[in-house]
Amino acid sequence: MKIKTIPSASNAHHYQLLIKDLLENSLRVNPNHEIVYKDQERLNYYQLYDRIKQLCNMYGVLGLDGGSVVGVIDYDSHRFLMNYFAVPITGNVLHTVNWRLAPEQILYTINHAEDEVLIVHEDFLPVVETFFDRLETVKKIIVIKEKVSKINTTIVIDGFFDELLLEQSTIYEFPEFSEEAIATLFYTTGTTGNPKAVYFSHRQLVLHTMVESSVLSMMNEAFKIKSSDVYLPLTPMFHVHAWGLPYLATTLSLKQVYVGKFEPQSFIDIFRREKPTISHCVPTILNMLLSSPAARDIDLSTWSVLIGGSALSKPLAKRALDRGISVVTGYGMSETCPLLTSSYLSLVTIKNDIESQLDIRTMTGRAALLVDLKIVDEEGREVPKDGKSLGEIIVRAPYLTMGYYKEKEKGEELWQGGYLHTGDIAWINENNDIKIVDRSKDVIKTGGEWMSSLALEEMIGSYQGINDVAVIGVPDVKWGERPFALVVCKEGFTLSEQELKDHMQKFVDQKKINKWAIPDRFVFVEVIPKTSVGKISKKKIREMYASHEI
Amino acid sequence: MKIKTIPSASNAHHYQLLIKDLLENSLRVNPNHEIVYKDQERLNYYQLYDRIKQLCNMYGVLGLDGGSVVGVIDYDSHRFLMNYFAVPITGNVLHTVNWRLAPEQILYTINHAEDEVLIVHEDFLPVVETFFDRLETVKKIIVIKEKVSKINTTIVIDGFFDELLLEQSTIYEFPEFSEEAIATLFYTTGTTGNPKAVYFSHRQLVLHTMVESSVLSMMNEAFKIKSSDVYLPLTPMFHVHAWGLPYLATTLSLKQVYVGKFEPQSFIDIFRREKPTISHCVPTILNMLLSSPAARDIDLSTWSVLIGGSALSKPLAKRALDRGISVVTGYGMSETCPLLTSSYLSLVTIKNDIESQLDIRTMTGRAALLVDLKIVDEEGREVPKDGKSLGEIIVRAPYLTMGYYKEKEKGEELWQGGYLHTGDIAWINENNDIKIVDRSKDVIKTGGEWMSSLALEEMIGSYQGINDVAVIGVPDVKWGERPFALVVCKEGFTLSEQELKDHMQKFVDQKKINKWAIPDRFVFVEVIPKTSVGKISKKKIREMYASHEI
Repeated sequence: MKIKTIPSASNAHHYQLLIKDLLENSLRVNPNHEIVYKDQERLNYYQLYDRIKQLCNMYGVLGLDGGSVVGVIDYDSHRFLMNYFAVPITGNVLHTVNWRLAPEQILYTINHAEDEVLIVHEDFLPVVETFFDRLETVKKIIVIKEKVSKINTTIVIDGFFDELLLEQSTIYEFPEFSEEAIATLFYTTGTTGNPKAVYFSHRQLVLHTMVESSVLSMMNEAFKIKSSDVYLPLTPMFHVHAWGLPYLATTLSLKQVYVGKFEPQSFIDIFRREKPTISHCVPTILNMLLSSPAARDIDLSTWSVLIGGSALSKPLAKRALDRGISVVTGYGMSETCPLLTSSYLSLVTIKNDIESQLDIRTMTGRAALLVDLKIVDEEGREVPKDGKSLGEIIVRAPYLTMGYYKEKEKGEELWQGGYLHTGDIAWINENNDIKIVDRSKDVIKTGGEWMSSLALEEMIGSYQGINDVAVIGVPDVKWGERPFALVVCKEGFTLSEQELKDHMQKFVDQKKINKWAIPDRFVFVEVIPKTSVGKISKKKIREMYASHEI
Repeated sequence: MKIKTIPSASNAHHYQLLIKDLLENSLRVNPNHEIVYKDQERLNYYQLYDRIKQLCNMYGVLGLDGGSVVGVIDYDSHRFLMNYFAVPITGNVLHTVNWRLAPEQILYTINHAEDEVLIVHEDFLPVVETFFDRLETVKKIIVIKEKVSKINTTIVIDGFFDELLLEQSTIYEFPEFSEEAIATLFYTTGTTGNPKAVYFSHRQLVLHTMVESSVLSMMNEAFKIKSSDVYLPLTPMFHVHAWGLPYLATTLSLKQVYVGKFEPQSFIDIFRREKPTISHCVPTILNMLLSSPAARDIDLSTWSVLIGGSALSKPLAKRALDRGISVVTGYGMSETCPLLTSSYLSLVTIKNDIESQLDIRTMTGRAALLVDLKIVDEEGREVPKDGKSLGEIIVRAPYLTMGYYKEKEKGEELWQGGYLHTGDIAWINENNDIKIVDRSKDVIKTGGEWMSSLALEEMIGSYQGINDVAVIGVPDVKWGERPFALVVCKEGFTLSEQELKDHMQKFVDQKKINKWAIPDRFVFVEVIPKTSVGKISKKKIREMYASHEI
């Protein structure tokens, strides 16, 4: 079809969406709000702005003049936040290194991304030591030193972060360049083979921030950000831009709190002192906090928590709501920057009692502004909006990875048919509420029917005395696959397989599941294998139990 | 400098920011909210969506297949809202015709924009009749008929809007095209010569909507949009996209109320019935409403009003605040889509008493997210942030007109040096609050000093018995220029020139102005000439009084 364009005046400025523009806004809103790092540092936004300019100059001094990759290995910190800005602002690319990977995998990602400068918190030096001589592209290693004790390492260190930073001038003019410049890259695991790198441009990150701003201010009554909020992330900042919230919090100049190495007790001390009002984490962390005796007597009633990474179960949501925490679900993945959906509580729902809100709060939610989300069957046809027909979620949005870095074929597979394939199986109802029932590879196919391993986990988990549960499908000659459950009991509880089968029979009686959905075997274990970002690792469970006799 | 880009997967979708994406969101938030037109129509968002699809089909039937211009001559209405979406969504260009212009100027804009289809409310047929035979590009005229009486016109009519619309199918697939496609154009007056056309692309309008969403949700404590808000515009929809709010309100699926032809009494009836909570208008309209006896006994305390177009004076702001209306200032112009700044009330300021809030609420405000705003002196140097040094506001933002349509030289002038020159003279303080003191062409240069005509108007206007006032500079051999005032008295008041000079002398005594700032002449008139959008027309005043003896 035809469209009309009109030539621009020769001097007209073709505005590029750049990360610097988000930072500029922080000085206009509440610049006296603080960025807090543990009990070690408090910066207001004027100071943050100056530090970021110093960091830009530091990367110049280190010889980076755009297009180079900087790897950061750090806990959640004000320094990581500075790097979220300074690295892309200087036209370089931020590689947020996942330090929860095995050392060999970390090495793989650093070499694959071609990091030229590594910023390493001293705690991770022993890990870097194991592969220091095999780093292929790193020219400089800068160490973040927090402890007073002398650093004892065989690595050749090129400087200390704070020292080098504070030597620099605070005068720096943010350069202009194409909004298509790559700003960040990081690695995603969870499938077979090596980690794969996703990457995001300045334009994508600015648009993601603005979409998040709209969604989390006006469209969700249960998680609304306001300028008086205090933001404290509880997901690692190496993981999908900490869901983009540090960019948003900085744009809005919210008070921000970074906890460094996560430990429940120190977190609770910080919580008491800094009074965060908005956070985000995986269910495991929320569970850990709610189970912690130290958290028993603190007031959590002004806290809103966005839960993602894995499904938020109703029992966990209920425990959180009972403590006054406003929990909601967010959904996305490394490939998607991440925000795709969030559970949407309308003006009506938000006034209902807790029980009736549980369904909505644990829902995967509704597609965010600008997210074109479809649920399609195996032939690519959209499934009816009936709240039960299952299909795969495929998406378009202005901030999705455009492939996997140096993995052409895997990128083509991700984007087949012009939509990004999430691999998540879900239904959608007439209100456009989406519920993910499983990862496509975790769906259990038994007796010709699809069964959600997550639904089974939720049912099993609702039994008293259960602390954690994972269900996978194991091969079966007769049925194709059969469900198989790993269970962790709460302290002081001893459960039997028969007890759990009887419990599941109730759901069969209520016609919620078919009788072949009851796992044949329940195996009681001490701990369920998790991925580096705290999700149940079905991959590891399959490796451990693939040959399990059932 | 170098940047890094990474090739995309061959099927990866390069997301374009298109107006259709805003509409899609309306079905996900509160789709049961209604769009109300007077007492004639109530549509929920499902119905609006269907109507827009029908309108898309209608433009297909009328032979438009993209790149054509549709002119709309209508009051604020649900139909105008449908056209805000359907015309650009079909790849065509919406020309919002300013029907307040003189008929010959309206004709000029329609021919200049090359409108192919004209949508005309029946009330404007007599105007169109005056130039019907001189329309050069219009192929079809479609009439909006609301009254039962038969239409009596010499114009050849090609159909009635509602009839044609409702005949169409609701099945229509929104096409994808470049985000650089022009979506809207309209004409700006106020300078010498013919009206000039500004134009905006899909990308620009989507970004404007998102910036407005951020600014009006999280950054301004005095004008925060929430999903329960009821939106009612009080600026004509032909004027700068009604400040972009119909796009935002639709994106968020707010309840929207359109009043048709504006009359204070019918507005008040609608106000009582539909209970709007957010509106925007020029000061004149606010003044009219506050002065209307009919509005005396309605509760306005849940109403927030964004004031723009001209400066909001403190006396008017005070009267509004005394009635419980939360008034704030927004600033922008036709060339800027429009939002550039809004007055920013922090968490602290919002708790202060009314008097101390007046300064901030009448401030031009702080630059919006993504707006790069500078105040520069005549040599292009930024003025100090001292709250008094004057300079011109120049801007970059992702949604500024890239020139004037078919007026190359004027576009070059607008964009000289790569910044859009607003022609507004302002100061900025250390909090980044901006205050416009005048239009550069309205500043009075007397005895070698710049003097703000607006400041003088505010001082004169603070005297009791004054209803309206305008100050211009008139040429003076000795002083260069001298201030000259037009005054409209309130009913029942008779003022003398000496009385007003004595009043102004008080400001001289308080050292707020120099003694030569007192106008030599105060002329008492019945009405002050206004522009088509309700601003004081200093151009007309100058024409009338240029040769005035003083």
